[in-house]
Amino acid sequence: MDARPKLLNDPVYGFIQLRHADFTEIMDHPWVQRLRRISQLGMSHLVYPGAVHNRFHHALGALHLMQEALDSLREKGIVITEDEYRGACMAILLHDVGHGPFSHALEHTLVRGVHHEEISTLIMTRLNEEFNGMLDTAIDIFNDHHPKGFLHDLVSSQLDMDRMDYLRRDSFFTGVSEGQISSERIIRMLNVHEGRLVVEEKGIYSIEKFIISRRLMYWQVYLHKTVLAAEWMMMGILERARDLVLQGEDVWTTPALRPFLSQDLDRAQFMADPEVLATFCALDDSDVMCCIKSWQNHPDQVLSDLSRRLTHRKLFKIELRDAPFNQDDIAERITAVEKLMGLSTADAACFVLHDRIDNRAYSTASHGIGMLFKDGTVRDAASASDHLNLSTLSVPVERHFLAYPKELPPRPTAVKG
Amino acid sequence: MDARPKLLNDPVYGFIQLRHADFTEIMDHPWVQRLRRISQLGMSHLVYPGAVHNRFHHALGALHLMQEALDSLREKGIVITEDEYRGACMAILLHDVGHGPFSHALEHTLVRGVHHEEISTLIMTRLNEEFNGMLDTAIDIFNDHHPKGFLHDLVSSQLDMDRMDYLRRDSFFTGVSEGQISSERIIRMLNVHEGRLVVEEKGIYSIEKFIISRRLMYWQVYLHKTVLAAEWMMMGILERARDLVLQGEDVWTTPALRPFLSQDLDRAQFMADPEVLATFCALDDSDVMCCIKSWQNHPDQVLSDLSRRLTHRKLFKIELRDAPFNQDDIAERITAVEKLMGLSTADAACFVLHDRIDNRAYSTASHGIGMLFKDGTVRDAASASDHLNLSTLSVPVERHFLAYPKELPPRPTAVKG
Amino acid sequence: MDARPKLLNDPVYGFIQLRHADFTEIMDHPWVQRLRRISQLGMSHLVYPGAVHNRFHHALGALHLMQEALDSLREKGIVITEDEYRGACMAILLHDVGHGPFSHALEHTLVRGVHHEEISTLIMTRLNEEFNGMLDTAIDIFNDHHPKGFLHDLVSSQLDMDRMDYLRRDSFFTGVSEGQISSERIIRMLNVHEGRLVVEEKGIYSIEKFIISRRLMYWQVYLHKTVLAAEWMMMGILERARDLVLQGEDVWTTPALRPFLSQDLDRAQFMADPEVLATFCALDDSDVMCCIKSWQNHPDQVLSDLSRRLTHRKLFKIELRDAPFNQDDIAERITAVEKLMGLSTADAACFVLHDRIDNRAYSTASHGIGMLFKDGTVRDAASASDHLNLSTLSVPVERHFLAYPKELPPRPTAVKG
Amino acid sequence: MDARPKLLNDPVYGFIQLRHADFTEIMDHPWVQRLRRISQLGMSHLVYPGAVHNRFHHALGALHLMQEALDSLREKGIVITEDEYRGACMAILLHDVGHGPFSHALEHTLVRGVHHEEISTLIMTRLNEEFNGMLDTAIDIFNDHHPKGFLHDLVSSQLDMDRMDYLRRDSFFTGVSEGQISSERIIRMLNVHEGRLVVEEKGIYSIEKFIISRRLMYWQVYLHKTVLAAEWMMMGILERARDLVLQGEDVWTTPALRPFLSQDLDRAQFMADPEVLATFCALDDSDVMCCIKSWQNHPDQVLSDLSRRLTHRKLFKIELRDAPFNQDDIAERITAVEKLMGLSTADAACFVLHDRIDNRAYSTASHGIGMLFKDGTVRDAASASDHLNLSTLSVPVERHFLAYPKELPPRPTAVKG
Repeated sequence: MDARPKLLNDPVYGFIQLRHADFTEIMDHPWVQRLRRISQLGMSHLVYPGAVHNRFHHALGALHLMQEALDSLREKGIVITEDEYRGACMAILLHDVGHGPFSHALEHTLVRGVHHEEISTLIMTRLNEEFNGMLDTAIDIFNDHHPKGFLHDLVSSQLDMDRMDYLRRDSFFTGVSEGQISSERIIRMLNVHEGRLVVEEKGIYSIEKFIISRRLMYWQVYLHKTVLAAEWMMMGILERARDLVLQGEDVWTTPALRPFLSQDLDRAQFMADPEVLATFCALDDSDVMCCIKSWQNHPDQVLSDLSRRLTHRKLFKIELRDAPFNQDDIAERITAVEKLMGLSTADAACFVLHDRIDNRAYSTASHGIGMLFKDGTVRDAASASDHLNLSTLSVPVERHFLAYPKELPPRPTAVKG
Repeated sequence: MDARPKLLNDPVYGFIQLRHADFTEIMDHPWVQRLRRISQLGMSHLVYPGAVHNRFHHALGALHLMQEALDSLREKGIVITEDEYRGACMAILLHDVGHGPFSHALEHTLVRGVHHEEISTLIMTRLNEEFNGMLDTAIDIFNDHHPKGFLHDLVSSQLDMDRMDYLRRDSFFTGVSEGQISSERIIRMLNVHEGRLVVEEKGIYSIEKFIISRRLMYWQVYLHKTVLAAEWMMMGILERARDLVLQGEDVWTTPALRPFLSQDLDRAQFMADPEVLATFCALDDSDVMCCIKSWQNHPDQVLSDLSRRLTHRKLFKIELRDAPFNQDDIAERITAVEKLMGLSTADAACFVLHDRIDNRAYSTASHGIGMLFKDGTVRDAASASDHLNLSTLSVPVERHFLAYPKELPPRPTAVKG
Repeated sequence: MDARPKLLNDPVYGFIQLRHADFTEIMDHPWVQRLRRISQLGMSHLVYPGAVHNRFHHALGALHLMQEALDSLREKGIVITEDEYRGACMAILLHDVGHGPFSHALEHTLVRGVHHEEISTLIMTRLNEEFNGMLDTAIDIFNDHHPKGFLHDLVSSQLDMDRMDYLRRDSFFTGVSEGQISSERIIRMLNVHEGRLVVEEKGIYSIEKFIISRRLMYWQVYLHKTVLAAEWMMMGILERARDLVLQGEDVWTTPALRPFLSQDLDRAQFMADPEVLATFCALDDSDVMCCIKSWQNHPDQVLSDLSRRLTHRKLFKIELRDAPFNQDDIAERITAVEKLMGLSTADAACFVLHDRIDNRAYSTASHGIGMLFKDGTVRDAASASDHLNLSTLSVPVERHFLAYPKELPPRPTAVKG
Repeated sequence: MDARPKLLNDPVYGFIQLRHADFTEIMDHPWVQRLRRISQLGMSHLVYPGAVHNRFHHALGALHLMQEALDSLREKGIVITEDEYRGACMAILLHDVGHGPFSHALEHTLVRGVHHEEISTLIMTRLNEEFNGMLDTAIDIFNDHHPKGFLHDLVSSQLDMDRMDYLRRDSFFTGVSEGQISSERIIRMLNVHEGRLVVEEKGIYSIEKFIISRRLMYWQVYLHKTVLAAEWMMMGILERARDLVLQGEDVWTTPALRPFLSQDLDRAQFMADPEVLATFCALDDSDVMCCIKSWQNHPDQVLSDLSRRLTHRKLFKIELRDAPFNQDDIAERITAVEKLMGLSTADAACFVLHDRIDNRAYSTASHGIGMLFKDGTVRDAASASDHLNLSTLSVPVERHFLAYPKELPPRPTAVKG
């Protein structure tokens, strides 16, 4: 109806323009529309009530930044053909299309051993068939098979448009203003050196700020104690439901969630059977939410109790610390649950969650962030920053948590790590 | 655990403080937590992808503004006791607690003849019992039975904290920056005259701006064509499902939605039977979403087709105009659907939606917005504004729409109104 | 040193890009740099402490919007040659270059009978000689002699980039958030019809909002009572100083201000004598400020008293009303000053300021704002808006003020209009 | 006229409330009003055109934050009497009242050996006499003689309301969004431990962010190369003018600047002679600007050339590096100026500027930032931050610059450090 670029209102950037009709076509596909029903930040909205934005919105935002970045690079004389431009844009638009319900929270619970990026690739391949090869270049770029490596870097690297958008968007919607980054400024500082993406020297302060902001968002939002408690409770609930189903118990589910509880879908099946992918793409947050709500009334005490807590936000108390919790710590809590709730040890164990989490704000491992100096040399940002100790930031920070019902008696101090 | 006021991050106001532990207690009740799963703007996110905020967040925002307003009035010497302060705050916190899934969109489809404010009152009454009378004052204020009428005006009037928050919040999340109002400024201009809420004379420009913004939000967001199409399609789907259930067809639903399809709940039952209310409070957006997704595969062609369109955002084309569409217009479209889809006339009619909508940006009907002049007189804003023609704004604007599948042939021009 | 577009940080738009080296060259000229020392809003900062931005910043902002508008029109298929693009940009960059100290406040005090737009044209002509014809197209556009009339409309019309920037910038720096307009949205809605600028139909709400915002800014900022008092006091001071100089009194001035006090420069001299223009371009806010500070110690009681008041912000009390003040009102105040300060009637009259001010938020007089409808017709926004009474807004609102020292006894109420 | 707290619009915080009539009285004093004419960031606006805000605005902003901080501490149960509340507020309102023209830029040029804080104390003392002891507590707090040391910490420490406001305000007006800090959040985290100000444990990320932002603002704004060049040129101009005056040359000045060029005012005179202080308080940016403009036409080639360059923003080229420039580097540049401009060696030296600058983002020296842990212990933020290397940040970073006219031939590379 209109040949002009489609324009969408966006609270973060003001407007998002879809420069090509192809982008609109991709966006309108049911498998992309489905991202509207997948929250970007899982259970973070239980702590930050504004954080209810979804994957669809993030995909649009990343597309917006990609267009800005490609335009800016072209202005600097970098050759990017029309086909490459579209390819990079469609690659970023689809980079997260393989996410399942509640994004990262349930990634390894619903489908074991399949990373969301693999599913993204799988979906892109299917869409490419459907759209007669329109995604050829996008897939090459996504998988780093395209000769212009910087296009892949824009899609997936320490400084890609994905990270850039999610940091801005997540800090915006959570209201954690300290996480704000100047994506506009960083994008203007991007350049290409020997085919890969680099940042011009004078962007060093912005890069430092970007890395600090990312770390801050990790600890303040993504790995927030309360959010962790909620997400691990959700995982526990789904695992319990699956166990009951496998034991032959009757567990109500939505049609879309059923296959993921009754079968143990593995990587091979996902890759081989087109039906499995279609099944996966029918699933979204609402299935999980409806099931958990209904499970409040399930006869299994573990399932119903956990479901009630999560639905009504009666979350576990969670302790976070540097050292791991030892077996005694954990056993003590399980015993406490047994006593309090009159459960078997095995069932009580479902109420004591513990694991290791880590965060690596900046990694020099594979590709770091290359800084391009005026004399033409490139150095990694970690060494180029003479004031900030970026090397410290690249050491992964490991934390351990222990979570259990709030109503348990306090833990004996002697056991404390 | 902490006696200090709870602080929440909010992208709109920066921080929201819950000044009293009572507010936190109310907020933590499952029936209030449920508002987290009720979207504030129904299907508007299909046009404005950021508009995914929920009723819970709005309730907190309105509470924030209420606290600001009460503080400001106290500063001006208006006597507000501690009990009244808490009452007004709890009244605004709970003012929308009676909303069902998708807020206004399904209000008259799921439960006929019961306004959400009645349900809010009902819920408050139950909570008041549960909390041993803690809500006595709140309920008096909510129902305008409290002697200090201005407290009710802050909860429900042309210039209440509800409108103030939703205009700011909705314009913020949609990214329609023109809808922004200066709630802070308006609040500072509030005063009390003969027991009712008034605005001081120098606030006249802010009031004009507030009214214009509201009108702009109505036409640009709340009554946006595409949003209307989606919401009416959703209503059509639920009505079809109910018809099928009443005809004895097998229609899969979530447990929470079932009673609302199989029974025709009326006002009397709602008021009389505590179970009905509990049932209602188990319901949220995820139930509706899950059902519509599953109905894509229902044998009834009308139900499955409409469900597929809505799930994948293949929305109807919609025409909006001042004059009503006549019976010939409508019949022509139904015939066109019959031909295209091979349906009976009755079934085809499910694909042709039409109705009247209106908007009244400012009404002087009951209570208008009283402006307090320096000489002590109060005049209605509509007459106090010598430049803006507020009286024009108080005439309701009526529009008529006709919506049908995009793939139909264009309407014959002769029929055009 | 760098062929790439220069980038400037701007708190309003984030970044301002200067797309061509020519723009930088113009911007670096001393006569443009001088705008850094001319405040945009005269004495408004006495009420809104943030409103200290200058004409230079506004010129850059208007250039930014011009670039956005031209890009958007080109995207819609409107042909704009490279020469026209640069011309329109340079015309807007220089549109206000003829402003003198304190912008509008002293426009008719320092140089009588010469409008700042005439001086702008004069300066552009000189610069054009200096830059060897680089401004030919810009001057044609500025004076509406260019065949593509819409380029002139972008520089000077009801909806030009000047108004668009100053409304956003002024509301930003004053903190009067209600004045904010969505310049980005309006720009996207611009189009060309029969060679002139029009707004597409769906922009009608934004246009209404723009007009309301402009009116709001007029009454809340530009014509704020306290600002009026300060600006009229400043005019009174400069007129008194000039009278003293013409009477042969010794009055200290900065070298740049001297010619404007000792001679009565008229339009003809300005046009004819290049020296007069150079003299004018040496002048800025700091000259006026330094002189007024020094005049605090001048032997003339009127000059020193008024200068002290203004320097230390001891401003006159000001009354604003619809009806004019009559001669009795004014005479009564002068007599009161005579008594209080022991001055002659003539001198006392310098302490009683009165005049008529008006504001015309939207005028259909010459060019109104044309709205382009889908059927290809163009209607004026005033009639196209069916809800807002824009025609009311186009009637100029007239107000009258009377200002006098705060310490005078109150005015006898009998005299009140 | 109104007993209610005065409210000011502020683009940074929305509104600033002056909670007590005393604050308004202080603010209205000519010596405080004078801060309206002292720019906050000296010549930074030559790089960041929005950075034209003044000291007056900053003083109001710091007052706003002080009120917020005191309210928050009171909420946490810290006892702050009404007298202490007002004292702390007035101390912060006046903390910078001793700044002269262009703030830091000319601090050691106009008045040698007197720090602006000493002048602030002097002015407070005078005002205290004038206001009959109203400032007794404020002065005690300012000089850290008040028993509640945390009140002094709020006025002057690593985390005082001064720094908090200037970081927010400066990043706001420059548009360097990366400098933004969450003052609101930090303030909520403040507490008192053993009488001094501390930050609660969970504020550690905000503190890290605050320190990083400060460093970023130093290098990106306060010590920006171009800004340094402009400020050192201004110092050079004033020193040249003073030399000429002392040599008996005729140099035009405004009355307010004259004493600062013709006499060599020292600390002792400042302290002893009330007239000197009054003279100082008559001085502001406009005096310096007017003089430099007029000196463009002075017969002394050094003075006129430098003045022309600064007025028209023809700034020196500046090199910044870690190592000092040696005597050969400097001599080479002076010789180059001699040749190019035909000047004596002594005069040529005025065109070659060089010095050392440093920045210490966070210092643990006197008082660091104490972090209060849940177990009641206090540790310095530098050691409490396990991820960020704050200790690195506390090492002062030293840089050296060399600046000279742009038109000089490039420096011989052999000489490069």
